[in-house]
Amino acid sequence: MSPHPPLLAVSLGDPAGIGPEVVAKAWDSRRALDLPPFVAVGDPRSLSEVWDGPLAIVSDPGEARAAFDHGLPLLAVPAASASSPGQPSNAGAHCSLDSLELAVGLARSGSCAGVITGPVAKHQLYSIGFSHPGQTEFVAERCGVSPSNVAMMLAGPTLRTVPVTTHLPLRDVAAVLTTGLIEARGRVTLRGLQRSFGIANPRLAVAGFNPHAGENGALGREEIELIEPAIATLRAEGWDVTGPHPADTMFHGSARARYDAALCMYHDQALIPLKALHFEEGVNLTLGLPIIRTAPDHGTAFDIAGQDRADPRAMAAAIRMAATCAIYRLAHG
Amino acid sequence: MSPHPPLLAVSLGDPAGIGPEVVAKAWDSRRALDLPPFVAVGDPRSLSEVWDGPLAIVSDPGEARAAFDHGLPLLAVPAASASSPGQPSNAGAHCSLDSLELAVGLARSGSCAGVITGPVAKHQLYSIGFSHPGQTEFVAERCGVSPSNVAMMLAGPTLRTVPVTTHLPLRDVAAVLTTGLIEARGRVTLRGLQRSFGIANPRLAVAGFNPHAGENGALGREEIELIEPAIATLRAEGWDVTGPHPADTMFHGSARARYDAALCMYHDQALIPLKALHFEEGVNLTLGLPIIRTAPDHGTAFDIAGQDRADPRAMAAAIRMAATCAIYRLAHG
Repeated sequence: MSPHPPLLAVSLGDPAGIGPEVVAKAWDSRRALDLPPFVAVGDPRSLSEVWDGPLAIVSDPGEARAAFDHGLPLLAVPAASASSPGQPSNAGAHCSLDSLELAVGLARSGSCAGVITGPVAKHQLYSIGFSHPGQTEFVAERCGVSPSNVAMMLAGPTLRTVPVTTHLPLRDVAAVLTTGLIEARGRVTLRGLQRSFGIANPRLAVAGFNPHAGENGALGREEIELIEPAIATLRAEGWDVTGPHPADTMFHGSARARYDAALCMYHDQALIPLKALHFEEGVNLTLGLPIIRTAPDHGTAFDIAGQDRADPRAMAAAIRMAATCAIYRLAHG
Repeated sequence: MSPHPPLLAVSLGDPAGIGPEVVAKAWDSRRALDLPPFVAVGDPRSLSEVWDGPLAIVSDPGEARAAFDHGLPLLAVPAASASSPGQPSNAGAHCSLDSLELAVGLARSGSCAGVITGPVAKHQLYSIGFSHPGQTEFVAERCGVSPSNVAMMLAGPTLRTVPVTTHLPLRDVAAVLTTGLIEARGRVTLRGLQRSFGIANPRLAVAGFNPHAGENGALGREEIELIEPAIATLRAEGWDVTGPHPADTMFHGSARARYDAALCMYHDQALIPLKALHFEEGVNLTLGLPIIRTAPDHGTAFDIAGQDRADPRAMAAAIRMAATCAIYRLAHG
């Protein structure tokens, strides 16, 4: 069993990005932000280049809990050559991938209660032969789960959204949406709300695809042909599912209070409201995995790396959310 | 010249909707909300059915200013038969159309400095032969302006958005978007920011169409083929225009501070962030007209009409914004 509070693994991401800085700053603020103990995984130099706080190099996550009060515990994954902040390199990409793999392994083995993944440089990873679209798909594969059975949840303090489709040209979305896909993402979301958020009877609000949710077919038929049948199926399975809702009137305060997550049809429908409301503290959570995996909802930000300008709030929120989910999973069994 | 502060005309909209109630409640709160004088235009019974405050029936808008302190000034447009709240009728639709026409006429003649239009029932209007898609197109026609040369702005306290396309199935938007249309809407928006908001050098942020604004073509080509050329043209004309911006990262607080209006490619891209942030006080403003026209960004809400549940904040915001725009127009000449 995981100890209590749970110990988490945090991969630093690309050593030349803002990942090391935000992890170090999160540790600096561990008391003010009430963060659970975590062990960083990555290149020690990437931390010392941007931060002069105390590092506690550990060789086993078991040592991290005791060390956490006095230094940032680190499982060292040295890069083959030092990288400079803002200057991505192949050595850095290899290091970020090795760190990710080790951190995920710690979560899979039970040594850690969950993994938080720092931001990586996708193009740099592709150049060293990484063949997954992103970290999410890599983590899913390592966990033996098909990427089609996981879902990306974006979560902030007052809103959780899950896009049914993600990185597609908008004009192609209608052709990719199917009733089966909407149902599958809905199911993963509902089970995730139970397992990782402790919500016994989760409420899912499903967005329409067209303006005004299609106005009974006058402004598009995806609601009638694709979305309503998916909602009917999920309801028949006993889930509390509403919609299709007009997307523009489902994200204000009193509307958000009526559901636990919003299932959105395309990337920006899910991301626009989440980032408009919770830009600094958005967490990306992968649902459908046997392990807990969160990430701050931002990238490597090479343009500001090494300048002490990175905001650690999203990383801190990702760490705190992983801990909360770990506790719910323990309770849920 | 219009007097100062300007007198505004407010059509009550459908007598069976919440229009009369929110106008009356706005008058009730005129001091707390610091509203300028206005004259309501519509059916007296629709007000007395839902409100027991003092009506001041006037026969000329000139009388309204003096009356405003003591009663809600009303230019009476009696419906052929009384309507009940929540029960739309053809008589009510005729009344709402006559009220709209009179209120617009007052603004066109200069008797009033602008018009605020209460919510109407489109389907009921269609059943009496109304052939415009909505009030906006009707007002444009009465002003002698082609509907293609006006733009709908949605405005709240910290965000203004203008959709390039509005009530279309989402799968059809890509085929309707053209560089010329984006340019035209951008120009109307920029001129509107100058004329109606007093912004000498307005800043326009243009949204992308695809996730991540297409990522250099990897996630869609509308940015490269349609949006970037429109931005280049507007810039060549001397306007301060940026983009295409990824839509999900342009609506948080510090991003919003960098522009005066966001030009969006489709309905929900403009409406989701506006309503997520400013649901209770969203104002719909028509740009490109010779007169000032605003409206609360909500409908007739027949389901709650006559129950004293309607929130007057959007109507009050529409009245206040019309007055502000009128003052800027006077100053702008």
